[in-house]
Amino acid sequence: MMIVVMKSSANAKEVGVVIKKVRELGFEPHLSRGEKKSIVGVLGSEKHLDPEIFLVLPGVENVVPILQPFKQASREFKSESTVVVLDGTRIGGDNDVVIMAGPCAVESAEQTLAAAEAVAAAGAKVLRGGAFKPRTSPYSFQGLGEEGLKILKMASEKTGLAIVTEVMSPQTVDLVAAYADIMQVGARNMQNYPLLEAVGRTTKPILLKRGLMSTIEELLMAAEYILAKGNPNVILCERGIRSFEKYTRNTLDISAVPIIKKLSHLPVIVDPSHATGQRDLVAPVSKSAIAAGADGLIIEVHPEPEKALSDGAQSLHPEEFVELMAGLGQIAEAVGRGL
Amino acid sequence: MMIVVMKSSANAKEVGVVIKKVRELGFEPHLSRGEKKSIVGVLGSEKHLDPEIFLVLPGVENVVPILQPFKQASREFKSESTVVVLDGTRIGGDNDVVIMAGPCAVESAEQTLAAAEAVAAAGAKVLRGGAFKPRTSPYSFQGLGEEGLKILKMASEKTGLAIVTEVMSPQTVDLVAAYADIMQVGARNMQNYPLLEAVGRTTKPILLKRGLMSTIEELLMAAEYILAKGNPNVILCERGIRSFEKYTRNTLDISAVPIIKKLSHLPVIVDPSHATGQRDLVAPVSKSAIAAGADGLIIEVHPEPEKALSDGAQSLHPEEFVELMAGLGQIAEAVGRGL
Amino acid sequence: MMIVVMKSSANAKEVGVVIKKVRELGFEPHLSRGEKKSIVGVLGSEKHLDPEIFLVLPGVENVVPILQPFKQASREFKSESTVVVLDGTRIGGDNDVVIMAGPCAVESAEQTLAAAEAVAAAGAKVLRGGAFKPRTSPYSFQGLGEEGLKILKMASEKTGLAIVTEVMSPQTVDLVAAYADIMQVGARNMQNYPLLEAVGRTTKPILLKRGLMSTIEELLMAAEYILAKGNPNVILCERGIRSFEKYTRNTLDISAVPIIKKLSHLPVIVDPSHATGQRDLVAPVSKSAIAAGADGLIIEVHPEPEKALSDGAQSLHPEEFVELMAGLGQIAEAVGRGL
Amino acid sequence: MMIVVMKSSANAKEVGVVIKKVRELGFEPHLSRGEKKSIVGVLGSEKHLDPEIFLVLPGVENVVPILQPFKQASREFKSESTVVVLDGTRIGGDNDVVIMAGPCAVESAEQTLAAAEAVAAAGAKVLRGGAFKPRTSPYSFQGLGEEGLKILKMASEKTGLAIVTEVMSPQTVDLVAAYADIMQVGARNMQNYPLLEAVGRTTKPILLKRGLMSTIEELLMAAEYILAKGNPNVILCERGIRSFEKYTRNTLDISAVPIIKKLSHLPVIVDPSHATGQRDLVAPVSKSAIAAGADGLIIEVHPEPEKALSDGAQSLHPEEFVELMAGLGQIAEAVGRGL
Repeated sequence: MMIVVMKSSANAKEVGVVIKKVRELGFEPHLSRGEKKSIVGVLGSEKHLDPEIFLVLPGVENVVPILQPFKQASREFKSESTVVVLDGTRIGGDNDVVIMAGPCAVESAEQTLAAAEAVAAAGAKVLRGGAFKPRTSPYSFQGLGEEGLKILKMASEKTGLAIVTEVMSPQTVDLVAAYADIMQVGARNMQNYPLLEAVGRTTKPILLKRGLMSTIEELLMAAEYILAKGNPNVILCERGIRSFEKYTRNTLDISAVPIIKKLSHLPVIVDPSHATGQRDLVAPVSKSAIAAGADGLIIEVHPEPEKALSDGAQSLHPEEFVELMAGLGQIAEAVGRGL
Repeated sequence: MMIVVMKSSANAKEVGVVIKKVRELGFEPHLSRGEKKSIVGVLGSEKHLDPEIFLVLPGVENVVPILQPFKQASREFKSESTVVVLDGTRIGGDNDVVIMAGPCAVESAEQTLAAAEAVAAAGAKVLRGGAFKPRTSPYSFQGLGEEGLKILKMASEKTGLAIVTEVMSPQTVDLVAAYADIMQVGARNMQNYPLLEAVGRTTKPILLKRGLMSTIEELLMAAEYILAKGNPNVILCERGIRSFEKYTRNTLDISAVPIIKKLSHLPVIVDPSHATGQRDLVAPVSKSAIAAGADGLIIEVHPEPEKALSDGAQSLHPEEFVELMAGLGQIAEAVGRGL
Repeated sequence: MMIVVMKSSANAKEVGVVIKKVRELGFEPHLSRGEKKSIVGVLGSEKHLDPEIFLVLPGVENVVPILQPFKQASREFKSESTVVVLDGTRIGGDNDVVIMAGPCAVESAEQTLAAAEAVAAAGAKVLRGGAFKPRTSPYSFQGLGEEGLKILKMASEKTGLAIVTEVMSPQTVDLVAAYADIMQVGARNMQNYPLLEAVGRTTKPILLKRGLMSTIEELLMAAEYILAKGNPNVILCERGIRSFEKYTRNTLDISAVPIIKKLSHLPVIVDPSHATGQRDLVAPVSKSAIAAGADGLIIEVHPEPEKALSDGAQSLHPEEFVELMAGLGQIAEAVGRGL
Repeated sequence: MMIVVMKSSANAKEVGVVIKKVRELGFEPHLSRGEKKSIVGVLGSEKHLDPEIFLVLPGVENVVPILQPFKQASREFKSESTVVVLDGTRIGGDNDVVIMAGPCAVESAEQTLAAAEAVAAAGAKVLRGGAFKPRTSPYSFQGLGEEGLKILKMASEKTGLAIVTEVMSPQTVDLVAAYADIMQVGARNMQNYPLLEAVGRTTKPILLKRGLMSTIEELLMAAEYILAKGNPNVILCERGIRSFEKYTRNTLDISAVPIIKKLSHLPVIVDPSHATGQRDLVAPVSKSAIAAGADGLIIEVHPEPEKALSDGAQSLHPEEFVELMAGLGQIAEAVGRGL
């Protein structure tokens, strides 16, 4: 359903072409003539319709879509909240707020296990850690690869934590799926469609991070790619967008949390570490995320941030994480949820 | 204190000119020679120094300021939090979170009084309402002017609420100051320097709203204009910045709250109504603001939003405001504050 | 003329309320029912209509304006290009591209006269120079005030150049108008409505700069404030907008030039100096502006940039300006205009 | 080479730790003590150094890199402009401006050949056309795949045009390389590192488009990934970035052209079609790009835009393209180049 706005200079023949096109496509045209401009409503079935089909016709000034372009991701399609179920942990709906925590990158078995034990003891349910790392510079540490996945698995077995880790290319989806409980599609890959399709063909839960440059609508369209391939287990993640403000690494779009919960049935979590890039902002921003209704958080914690190979400046010390968890519990309670 | 980075092509004479200039200005030069580039540290007293003085010299590639450009607004200048004191209400520091509420615009005595009574009953301490309205279109309602100020005064006297209202030009500062308890400088005027200077010459508390595309540093520099004229009673307000995201009117920069509290001693509040532009986002975003440490909120409430002359779509119904206040109390408690 | 989009949950009564409201306002409603949503076209006269009137009604999801909100500034209102006429110089339409040049700030009679003589000799028609300077820091040089205006006048009389200089507050409009041929409203004041109204009450040509955070539509609405007060002599200026890109001071929105020429009859010029902030980008960006159809340029030139009190890093040396003028002439010719 | 800025609260021990770390890494520390803060210059060899190594140390406030992070992509590494050589066409340096043109997507042999013949006749040297199409919606036309590549090849053989077409995943690099003369990495994939590495392992010229919210520095870092794998034939493409301005699809960052030419030796072209999204802006923006120094343009041309399956609204009619080419020739001449 969309509105075709004609130019004020459009003549009757041009309006006629639009109306004919609407009918050809199996929709019903509805013409409104104003003093200045005419508009043609395109009414009818739910079939996908590209606005461009009309935008290119002579005399057309603009096309305004009235229905949202995402379908399976929308609340209208599925009114009940999706709950992603891991072994013993449920994410979304009215379930407890889920905390995922751990180092930016898997650097060694010792470091990963130390982080895992610390965050498990403080109440986290999922261990984060990158084995494949997308880095801006080709000269920066790129992750341990499969060796890193094995270390995560070991830490998972020792602590009982589930694992979330990033997958960067279609070729490595099977490899990562063999180790991970949740596969992360990172912000830079949010519109990497071959990758979205590849993870959509699995049944693993997918953590889909919003791109730095992506609107909420585009995030939901990226989720649609995964859902359309048959995988319903998508968790969305707000992790900050790019703005002109230079004090923080990115600008956390806190409103995205209630908006996504309104538009979509999918769970939404927040990454305060990447959103702010600064350790001392992680606590207040984490609290704000839960107060806004987030279903979970993904937080960087490192046993020794000052020795981290990446993101040390935004990683919490284990004792800072313990203190944060106490504060988060109170906020969760204030919004009627557990932690 | 700043760093002058020389071009890799800079010769000894050009470096010498920079060093001489540093000395002339009463600072101490400190030269570091790298394999590729030389840098000159500019050390010394606290005097203000324009980076451009060096940027224009031959052979200079870049100048990096090391100290922040704001002074009186900084925590380094005054480590203790500023508390703005109204009759019976204290804003900032460890004091209770202060709620300011009321209609976008003063439309009539009845509407304003109805709003004032509703928000006072629900626990607000300050009545907001515009008598002078900055509107994008010259053909939109521009406010009642002095008549509006009188209505606010009447409503204040009947309810005991303090008044916050906008002042738009230096000529009307005295007029507005005669009625208002807090004078607001709006987002569009954040860098209207004659206005900042005019309100800086009064002793009234000033609510300074962040511009839509102003950095936190620029907001603090705007506060500096007011402080430099002798008025210490400045309250800062985050109200959303402009981004590419189209779903909300603006993008609330939630991180600005803890950042400002770290960089500055001034109180900071949040405007969830203008930040989101949508009634159903006001509650979750208000909660997130308090969780992040805001000292107050300024919220649009209208007795009949569907009849509002402006901003009706983002104004709460009185009963929605009552419900919100209950939820905010719990969040305030969770972060160790009252409401 | 606008489209009211109803929520999919809207009932017949809610649709009825919208239709009744449309009629009450003297417009004609036009209902289209889709399978999912209904829309109501609001057709009729040209009267200004606030989208919010409908946005606040129950069951309304969104309101889409079909006509642009600016009137007197639009090409539809006046199809013929406005030409702003100075003594001997015509700006806009098919006239020659007009170059305005001079220092950022008037610092002294010597500096200003040296700049004026240099730019006049090279072919500029208008002298730029700030007597009242908006500065981010209250501790930076704020301009010479009326003394600066007198210096500009002297330089104008000696060289024959017209003067463009900034006015910052309604109180000083008469003062600046007594000396200037064109009064500039700066980017920070683009939505300072009392100032727009004050300059709108004069008959002086106004150079209105686009705000850093302002859309093209908002720029045209700001022009509308001036036109609505009776002053038809408005020149628009694209001078860069704020983006995430950090290499340049601002991001020049080159597309704004042809867009404004399409939407409006007003002349549009470009400020390559503020848009880029870097001397060596001024030449390529100036050329691109003329190639895109700009009616003029305003360029910072300083007799000794390395001694400038402001904007030295983006000011051209006189000899660089001479060289630039030669290149600009060739581009102007390639697009069928003189210089 | 970088500057480590210590907090004003940093003690001698913390400064000592930084200095020790600098030495350990094989660099030379250079300490400057100001009244407020100390800074440590990190001088020495060219080895890559992550700012985070210092950012995480206690007492460190900030780290300011002095050298740019890209190496092989920089003018300092290679001062002579890179010229990418196709069969009979040279891109970059002082060579003629190269025009690439054709439809957004390959839709059929007839459509592609018609487009190819039209653009070849008008003077284009390279045929553009997508066989693999990244689309926001999974329900939009995704391209003809290998069948599309074969059609391009056929059109190339009949017209003598070289082919540029997009590659979307590492698995299809070999396939696309078998047909294309230039492989395009699209804006959404600018930071798809496995893809960058895969095309870096070929010797085909690569057209690397700037991401919608990527800085120029990040674009050059993405090029660095390709160069670092051994492929020197990289052409950069400015195609508009995302801003708050809604009138155009994207905001063309025209300054990027001269900036890239200054920072890097790689050729840079402009895509006016995606930057603006509107047919009638393509001509003025194309002219501005050549005036700013672009080495080429990539323009969407469709034999029947009103029937295009994608991007019809921004595609030129063949006769519009012919007219544009004439205008571009004059601009190229004005900046001393051929077309």
